[in-house]
Amino acid sequence: MMKVYLDHQSSTPVLPQVYEAMLPWFSEYYGNASALHDQGLRAKAALNQARKQFSEAIHSADPESVLFTSCGTEANNLAVKGTAYALRHKGKHMILSKAEHPSVENSVAFLEGQGFTATRVPVDSQGFINPEDIRAAITPETILIATHYANHDIGTIQPIAQIGEIAREHKIQFFVDAAFSAGWLPINVREMNASLLSLSPHRFYGPKGVGVLYKNRKARLSSIIHGGIQENNLRSGTENIPAIVGGGLAMELAEIEREKKVSRLRVLQEKLWKGLSEQISYICLNGPLPGENRHPANLNVSTEFIEGEGQLLLCNAAGIAVASGSSCVSKNLKSSPTLSAIGLDITLAQGNIIFTLGKDNTFEQIDYVVSSFTKIVERLRKMSPMWDAFQKGNIASVIPQKP
Amino acid sequence: MMKVYLDHQSSTPVLPQVYEAMLPWFSEYYGNASALHDQGLRAKAALNQARKQFSEAIHSADPESVLFTSCGTEANNLAVKGTAYALRHKGKHMILSKAEHPSVENSVAFLEGQGFTATRVPVDSQGFINPEDIRAAITPETILIATHYANHDIGTIQPIAQIGEIAREHKIQFFVDAAFSAGWLPINVREMNASLLSLSPHRFYGPKGVGVLYKNRKARLSSIIHGGIQENNLRSGTENIPAIVGGGLAMELAEIEREKKVSRLRVLQEKLWKGLSEQISYICLNGPLPGENRHPANLNVSTEFIEGEGQLLLCNAAGIAVASGSSCVSKNLKSSPTLSAIGLDITLAQGNIIFTLGKDNTFEQIDYVVSSFTKIVERLRKMSPMWDAFQKGNIASVIPQKP
Repeated sequence: MMKVYLDHQSSTPVLPQVYEAMLPWFSEYYGNASALHDQGLRAKAALNQARKQFSEAIHSADPESVLFTSCGTEANNLAVKGTAYALRHKGKHMILSKAEHPSVENSVAFLEGQGFTATRVPVDSQGFINPEDIRAAITPETILIATHYANHDIGTIQPIAQIGEIAREHKIQFFVDAAFSAGWLPINVREMNASLLSLSPHRFYGPKGVGVLYKNRKARLSSIIHGGIQENNLRSGTENIPAIVGGGLAMELAEIEREKKVSRLRVLQEKLWKGLSEQISYICLNGPLPGENRHPANLNVSTEFIEGEGQLLLCNAAGIAVASGSSCVSKNLKSSPTLSAIGLDITLAQGNIIFTLGKDNTFEQIDYVVSSFTKIVERLRKMSPMWDAFQKGNIASVIPQKP
Repeated sequence: MMKVYLDHQSSTPVLPQVYEAMLPWFSEYYGNASALHDQGLRAKAALNQARKQFSEAIHSADPESVLFTSCGTEANNLAVKGTAYALRHKGKHMILSKAEHPSVENSVAFLEGQGFTATRVPVDSQGFINPEDIRAAITPETILIATHYANHDIGTIQPIAQIGEIAREHKIQFFVDAAFSAGWLPINVREMNASLLSLSPHRFYGPKGVGVLYKNRKARLSSIIHGGIQENNLRSGTENIPAIVGGGLAMELAEIEREKKVSRLRVLQEKLWKGLSEQISYICLNGPLPGENRHPANLNVSTEFIEGEGQLLLCNAAGIAVASGSSCVSKNLKSSPTLSAIGLDITLAQGNIIFTLGKDNTFEQIDYVVSSFTKIVERLRKMSPMWDAFQKGNIASVIPQKP
């Protein structure tokens, strides 16, 4: 049986070079970066080197704009709550979209319980935010606009520069959740006019245990984890040096020939969708067609009359690792908020599978996935009362058959 | 030149066995523990194995009582703020001591800015909390008693079981900050009557990037990092599996022959204090005498008429790694809150050095440290205007000369 890992948005293997770079930092160079002795100073230097690697990759001129957290989720929490607490004297209103990652959505919901308010702008049927909806939602009380760069579920790439321009015009802090984009898509914090931007290295062949929050010099932010004076007083706690070292190198490596790597992924992505859509009836693509406005690794499909859970488990039995819904809430088989936000019928949302490609996937693997997934769908439909009812003409399809 | 690492409370090297156990989890087994495929399920199993290792070491019968965070500081933030948010309907008053770690003190201070109130009970001249002071501070509004097990600065071991008994009698949630104790001192959450207890594996030869919060089944806690449903909805974010695997093994190994290892440390600790106090005039020990009520690794001394910073830098030049003040705020050379709390004269607090021993320190190293430190003190005093003034009889010592 072939083994095919197609869940790169959940996590990626650490690159061999990154792994090698991390190794000395566990048992040989183990100092606390706050300590004023050789071991500590060495750790501090490594921290600063990683700041430089991240700041260069995102076109920030200032290494000090890079803050380290423990993961992308914490970086998103810090951006949203940190802005709210820093600017509460100015206003208590935030703007986000209806298709944000749970770490942004739930941070905002938490703040709503503390007296803040929020406007959630809609997304269209492919997941796009209309920047004019954001402009229209601005009030004198607005302190934060928070949107994702590429959607974590359906890969939609947002018009970030346009949203950033609106934020700039209104002098409102702008947070870009790039946790699913960094390492795959180009990031230029100045062109985006981002005040804050989050990254998640374990999604681009770096280690788990580190997240990054870019903070523009003008951005106002309060700490959400209190204690010592690490990270310029914005994130207390002993820095996870091995993961920070690995994350910095993974970021640097991700930028090398990124466009070439992305072009290859786009070919695989198109091949996968072409294969699935030709072999399987009553299947639909969620999000934009593969191309400029879709994350090159993401393919989100819904197969009608069967459940995502069954598809996922049979894929696993066939050696294929995939996800359903959000990678953070795979076990929570309720419909994903993004799929609700694009107006997907609940039955299609429940029959949802996310394939995310990586650099090591091959054409041969894609052929195997298409043929295996086709058989899985056939097998599940044979057991499906809904499929049976559809065959007998008792229920209708909610997606149009392919032409 | 001999190299002597005496800053084990800042961080410790990862044990070779722990390092080996972590290695496969970077590039070979890299799945997200929330994913429902083989890679994910393997990560999930590793997570559960580590829960078991921690729960056994602290005598909790329930592996599910173990929550993973990114570090000890975050575990302390979660315990304090998580209790406050979960129980705000019941009351808004908290009790802590004046000698807590900044992660506890500053979490409480943050909550005071949100309408909570706190009573900080004093500590005596050796850093001990009087449990009766805690009893006296209880109001009908009290929702949390938070104290440390061993003090991070001066090693004082608190009468935790007595404090726990008071908490139990009054049905108040009790949080024990054991971030500087776990791996060195015995922990029994049932005997302590701890509702919550924090651990920091990188302080007992485990990796950075993981903290642990024990949560009794009855304890009420709200999440402070929002997003996915990880850690029973109490800590969102992709779990740092390599660090969790390493932390679990480090905890298990720390318990093997712990008393034997501690006995050896106590001998080194006594030898170090005996050497320093015999060789150096106008030096005092902060915290209890080496023995039952002092952390076996910690030796905190103040040398009069000279600054801690100079001592620290010259120690480093002599190959000796030490700390001054709190390990998290070494660069912040203001006096440590603990040293203020024990009533130490400000000049002594500023001349403070913390030696923390580890398993690899030798008798030979202690001899080297005593002779080197003696020379360092002599050298600094030769340059010290205060020492000069003291010699001329213009100022007095604030500590009694040794008999």
